[in-house]
Parts: sequence; C-alpha cells; structure tokens
Amino acid sequence: MANLIFAEENGRTITTDDKIFSTNKLAQEMIARVGKDKVANATIGALLDDNGKLVVLSSVVKVLKELGPEDYAEYAPIAGVPSFLESVKKVVFGSYQPKAHVEAVSTPGGTGAIHNIIQNYTRRGDAVLTSDWYWGPYSTIAHEIERKIATYPLFDNDFRFNHRAFAEKVEELLGQQDRLVIILNTPAHNPTGYTWSAEDWDHVVTTLKNTAAADKKRKIVLAADIAYIDFAGDEEEYRSFLPQIDVELPENLMMTIAFSMSKGFTMYGMRAGAALCLSRNPEVAKEFKTLCSLSARGTWSNCTRASMVAMAHICQDPDLWQQVREERAKYREMLIRRGRAFTEAAREAGLLTTPYDAGFFISIPCLNSDDVAAVLNEDGIFPVALGKGLRVSLASISEEWCRIIPAKMAAAIKKVNGN
Amino acid sequence: MANLIFAEENGRTITTDDKIFSTNKLAQEMIARVGKDKVANATIGALLDDNGKLVVLSSVVKVLKELGPEDYAEYAPIAGVPSFLESVKKVVFGSYQPKAHVEAVSTPGGTGAIHNIIQNYTRRGDAVLTSDWYWGPYSTIAHEIERKIATYPLFDNDFRFNHRAFAEKVEELLGQQDRLVIILNTPAHNPTGYTWSAEDWDHVVTTLKNTAAADKKRKIVLAADIAYIDFAGDEEEYRSFLPQIDVELPENLMMTIAFSMSKGFTMYGMRAGAALCLSRNPEVAKEFKTLCSLSARGTWSNCTRASMVAMAHICQDPDLWQQVREERAKYREMLIRRGRAFTEAAREAGLLTTPYDAGFFISIPCLNSDDVAAVLNEDGIFPVALGKGLRVSLASISEEWCRIIPAKMAAAIKKVNGN
Repeated sequence: MANLIFAEENGRTITTDDKIFSTNKLAQEMIARVGKDKVANATIGALLDDNGKLVVLSSVVKVLKELGPEDYAEYAPIAGVPSFLESVKKVVFGSYQPKAHVEAVSTPGGTGAIHNIIQNYTRRGDAVLTSDWYWGPYSTIAHEIERKIATYPLFDNDFRFNHRAFAEKVEELLGQQDRLVIILNTPAHNPTGYTWSAEDWDHVVTTLKNTAAADKKRKIVLAADIAYIDFAGDEEEYRSFLPQIDVELPENLMMTIAFSMSKGFTMYGMRAGAALCLSRNPEVAKEFKTLCSLSARGTWSNCTRASMVAMAHICQDPDLWQQVREERAKYREMLIRRGRAFTEAAREAGLLTTPYDAGFFISIPCLNSDDVAAVLNEDGIFPVALGKGLRVSLASISEEWCRIIPAKMAAAIKKVNGN
Repeated sequence: MANLIFAEENGRTITTDDKIFSTNKLAQEMIARVGKDKVANATIGALLDDNGKLVVLSSVVKVLKELGPEDYAEYAPIAGVPSFLESVKKVVFGSYQPKAHVEAVSTPGGTGAIHNIIQNYTRRGDAVLTSDWYWGPYSTIAHEIERKIATYPLFDNDFRFNHRAFAEKVEELLGQQDRLVIILNTPAHNPTGYTWSAEDWDHVVTTLKNTAAADKKRKIVLAADIAYIDFAGDEEEYRSFLPQIDVELPENLMMTIAFSMSKGFTMYGMRAGAALCLSRNPEVAKEFKTLCSLSARGTWSNCTRASMVAMAHICQDPDLWQQVREERAKYREMLIRRGRAFTEAAREAGLLTTPYDAGFFISIPCLNSDDVAAVLNEDGIFPVALGKGLRVSLASISEEWCRIIPAKMAAAIKKVNGN
C-alpha cells in the first residue's frame, strides 16, 4: 500500500504483503488440487503431528474445561492473576532459585511481553538490537511504537555466534543512545534453530556488564525471548543459562524474559504470557511491574483469566504438572526426531543450513530465496522465503518430509543460483 | 512515583495510585470486619447479583465449555476469526442494515478497540476529544501512545447534552490539528449513565459533517464506545442511533464503533471485542482493517480464539442466541430496577445526580468528593471519588442499597460542603 487515504502512517511501513500468509495460501491451494500427502506446508508456526493435525496437550484442555464460570467471566487483575504469576516463575526458572529480585506481569503471549519491554525501556526513535536472522514481528512491534530494529550478524564465517559483531554493535548503538534493549531469542532461535551455548552467554553477559560498567548513564535491558524453551530438549539443561543472567549485575543492566504459554502449553489461541525481570535493585523490579501494568491498562487492559487460572491449577497440582510434562515430552521427541532427520539429510545432500540445535524452525541460507522457493513449490514444498534464505518449519511437516526436503532444496538452489 | 530509576516516562504520568482499586480494598477490609450485608461496594465495574455474586450468562459458559480442543489451542487470524467478525456485525447492528462500507477487526475488549482507533487516526501529541465526565482509562490509553485527552463540558446548566460546547471544542481542536478522534461513550455512559438522544446525535453528526465539509484536509473519526449497549434497555431501541452514523458521510468523516463482549456476554475475562468502521469509501474501510491488523500484529498479535468461536456459535444458532438474550434480559431488568430505585430515592432525598438513563454507573456531582466519600465509608458505602463527584456502580450493589444510599449521600455532601 503506497499511500494512506485516511489513516496515519506514524513511522510504520504499511504493508498487507505477509509472506507467511501468502505462502501458506499457496500450499493450501496445492493441497486442494493434489491432496495433502503430496504437499509439505513448512510455513506454519505451530506444532502439528505427522498427519498435519495441531498438537494440543489434552491435559491442558481438560483443566481449561473444568474451570468454574467465574474463571472464564471475571476480569483478571491488570498485572495478572497472582497464582499465575507465581506459576510463571516456577515454569520459567524450573529448579533454579534466582538471587536477583524478580517481578512478573501478564501479557498476551510473548508478543505482548516484547512490546511492554520495548515500550518502557526505550524512547521513540531508538534502535532495538537483535540478530540479522530474526523473527519478523520484532520489527513490526518496534515500528508500531516508532522504534526501529538494528541487527548484528548472528553467525561468523564458521557459523558460530558472532560475539565480536554483537559487542561492536552494542557499543556502536550506545554511542548513539543511552538506552538499549537487546532481544535474544533462545533456546531454539526462530528462524535458525540455534541455541546460545554457555560460552555464548558468557560473551553476551560479559559484554553487557563491561558496557554497563563503562558508563553509569547507560541503561541496558536484555530481553530473552524463551518462547520455544520447552520444545528444545531436556527442561533442566535448557535452563542452564539462567544463573548466567542472574549474576552480580550492575545496577544499570536489567535482565528480562518474555514467557509464552503458546508453545509450551499448546495454548497459542488463549493469549497468555508474561514479561519478567531480574534486577539486583528491588526498586527497579518494582518499577518494571508498575510500568508494564500501566502499559497493559493503556493498551489491552488485562489478559485472559481462564488461561492464567488453568496454568496456576496445573502448576499447583503435582499430578497435573507431571501429566503435562509427560505429554509434552512425547511431542518434543517427535520434533527432535524431525530435526535430526532434516539435519542428517542435509548433510548427505551437501545442503548448508543454519546451525540448528532445536525448535520449530531451521533455515537454509541462500540467495534469491523467492526464486528458490518457487522451484520448490512445484514439488509441493513450501518454505518461507526470507531475505537471507529459506525458513522451514519442522514443527509443521512430517519426519518423512524432513528426509526428502534437503536434497530437493540443494537441487533447487543449484538450479536457481548455479552452485 | 516521582522519579523513574530505569524505565522511560515517554510522556506518561506514572502512578500506582488507582482510586478504584484502593477504594475497593477499603470496602473489602470493612466487609472482613463487619460482614458483607453492612457494606455497599459500589466500586466494581461488573454486574453482580443482589447477593454480590458475579452475574455470568450460563448459556455463554456452556458454549465455551463445549468447544473443541483446537478452538482453545489454535492461533486466531490477526484480524479475528471471520465468523466472529460476521457475528460482531450482527450483534452491533441488530436488525439494522448499514449502507456504508463496514469492516471489523478483533481487539482485546473495548480497550483494544479504542487503542487501535487512536493509534491509527492520530499522531503523537494530538488531542483526543471526549466529555469532561469520562472513563479514566481513555486518558491512560491516549497517554500510553503520547497523545492527550481534551474535554468539553458534557452537560449544560439544565443537565442536557452541551452540544454548543461540543461543537466549539471540535472547532478549536481542528484549528490546532488536522486530525481528530472523538470518543462518545453511549448508550449508558460511564460514569454518568447518560444516553445520547436522537436529538443529541443529530447535533453531533451535523456538527461533524459541517466541520468536515468546511475543510477537506480535516480527517475526523467518531468512536462510539458501546460497551454497555446490551444492558441499557430494549435492544432495538438502543440501536436506533445507528442510521444517524450511517448517513451520507463526507469522505473525510469516518464513524467507528468499539464493541466488547465483556458486558453483553459477561465475558470480561475472555478479552474479546472489535473495532468497526463505517465509511462511504470502501478503500477507507479496507485501510481501517489493514491498519488495525498491523497494530494488532505489533502489539498483542491475535486475540483469544475461544471467545470468538463461542460468540460465532451463539450467533449462528437461533436457539442459543435466544437463550443468551433471554438470560441477559433477566439481569438487565435487575439493573434497570436498581437504576429506578436509586433515581427515585435521589429525587426524594433532593440529591442531584447526573441525568442517568441506563447502565452500570450513575454519578453525583459534588465538590470535595474525597471527603464526602470518607464520610460515606463510615456508613459502609464505598463510591469512587472522581474529580467532578462520586461514581456509584449500580451494577455491583443491591436494589435495597440503591434505596438507602441517596439520602446518606445527600447528608454526607451537606456535612462536608454545607449545602
């Protein structure tokens, strides 16, 4: 859409061109023509079983259905149902006991958490930092409130975390603005499947601590978007980074976490999540809660009570909690098998992928991704063409397709780009 | 909170001082001391029965509980579930068939709809117009995105709609800015209970049409917040203003509606609502949908699917629809009886009230409202002290209390203000 007739642009790029939506539509049309067995719709950001059916944790639905009428009907407090907020801490931190002061505020999914953190810790015009491979809506969220996204190259030439580029970009941006929000989507980064290792986290935290210490006027907020944490692998192992963001923090460095029920509890449509903070200063944590609550009141008011109460019930009942974890583990194994199948087949086919560790997505770096995707579409394969390559949702295709796709991709890339 | 330590003020007034919350807390504390029969907690913005229990339409809960697992789990489209959007039009317009082009986009309650309209039809720094008696969160919503609220005196000296003041303020603001969003909360205005009459609507629409025609550069958006429409009275009668906002509109005047499931379907906690627009230009309506969807994607992403599907089921099934309407009518009658009891008792006590027609709230204009409230608190009566007087939630107190409170209020005002 080139020109607005009536509405205000307000610094945003107005577009109706949604690549995921349009590719999904193409896939659906082909399914209607040739049948679903002949199509791999690798666009969908939700976990489907090998028959293409949405995975729903029945243990969670059971709890939702057993709620009392008031649990559906009544407004939740603006900051969230207190028992839910306690449950969020339990789910996020697992067996780890944070030493910093922690506060949590309910948000509509991870999107609302990221919105709240950007809204309250940056100013209009500020850059928000994330990696060059990133989940597109970060940009939509930033632009919606007149901020912008700045990026650093996520990987170096050896496909390792480019910590030097990260540190340089942090320093560069803090030369231009006193405040900086940095989004790190890990474990199981969307769209690459990368998980920041303990060493990577060390680099990140050391950089931020040094940068914060170098100038007390700087205010640095790290936002860890952990949307995929419970589909990454062992729950404890994938929480091992937590002590690293709970170290002796300088007062002008705050750690925050965007939590979502969408994936871990398969409650995408119930819109529950939370923004959490860790600070050595209890007043900073309190301020986080106040500001995020104010933003909630002035934007969406309160969040869905039923999903909050359901999660609180689950976390307060050891049997229910065990049921949810077991059911989830089963589907997590399914996803891990797909990832293994895809990366093995990629190796065999000589297909370069991002350094996938876990999660819903893997990406294939390539030039002319739109043209490559068009070739793949002819074979019933529908990845999402990004600027830097192709994103494949392992969450939405069968293990069988995971074995087939890499060779097809290698061939399509060769056909289009000649290498 | 005077100074922020870490977070950014971004043009907002940062306060943790919530009058409704603190008054509610006082009421709860007194209930714990003396029992609930001796306390009228007139702070709550939800409909309670005469025993103080939240009214929940059992027909709605039944539909919610019967949904399939996917209806809870799956993401809704950003713009909303299509069958829900059709249902919203049916519920909002009733038997009326709008002639203008209509679009609807789902939002988390009425708050999200108001947010979307202000966000997309004003610029930073702009004033948004509403009446001097107004629902406080309008200001929170505006300030959150660096806009501000301007007001005109709602009533003239005879307690009629002050259409001259309205017209003057519209003209004044359009001398300062080319865009203007105007919020009209009717029927059953919160906090006064006033309903704009057909004559009032004529004044409003004529003013806006003339103002729009006078300068084509102006872009005027009227937002009708109809949160209380289905608890006002006869459903058709209270929709009789609809043809007035569907008249031959100038191209630079758009009508919008903020719809909420919170009250009408007693689904406060399920966070479903919608922003609707009416325009003679289909491109303007389409742009509305695009922009509101973009704002959703960049703020809360999508809305609660389960509540949308439930409302669609209800509206598609004539029996269910009839059940909901009958159940609601019963509770509406209860509320209407309370309003009648209160206004009659006020007349007998010589207590001046706002010109209450219907709805959850009535207000009593007075000076020193905090002091008057404090006197009433001693008698177990807990209204909310506003700048211009006291707000009483008829929705949350029994009919018996409605007969008792006015004389107590008259006495308390006399005690504090001496008249």
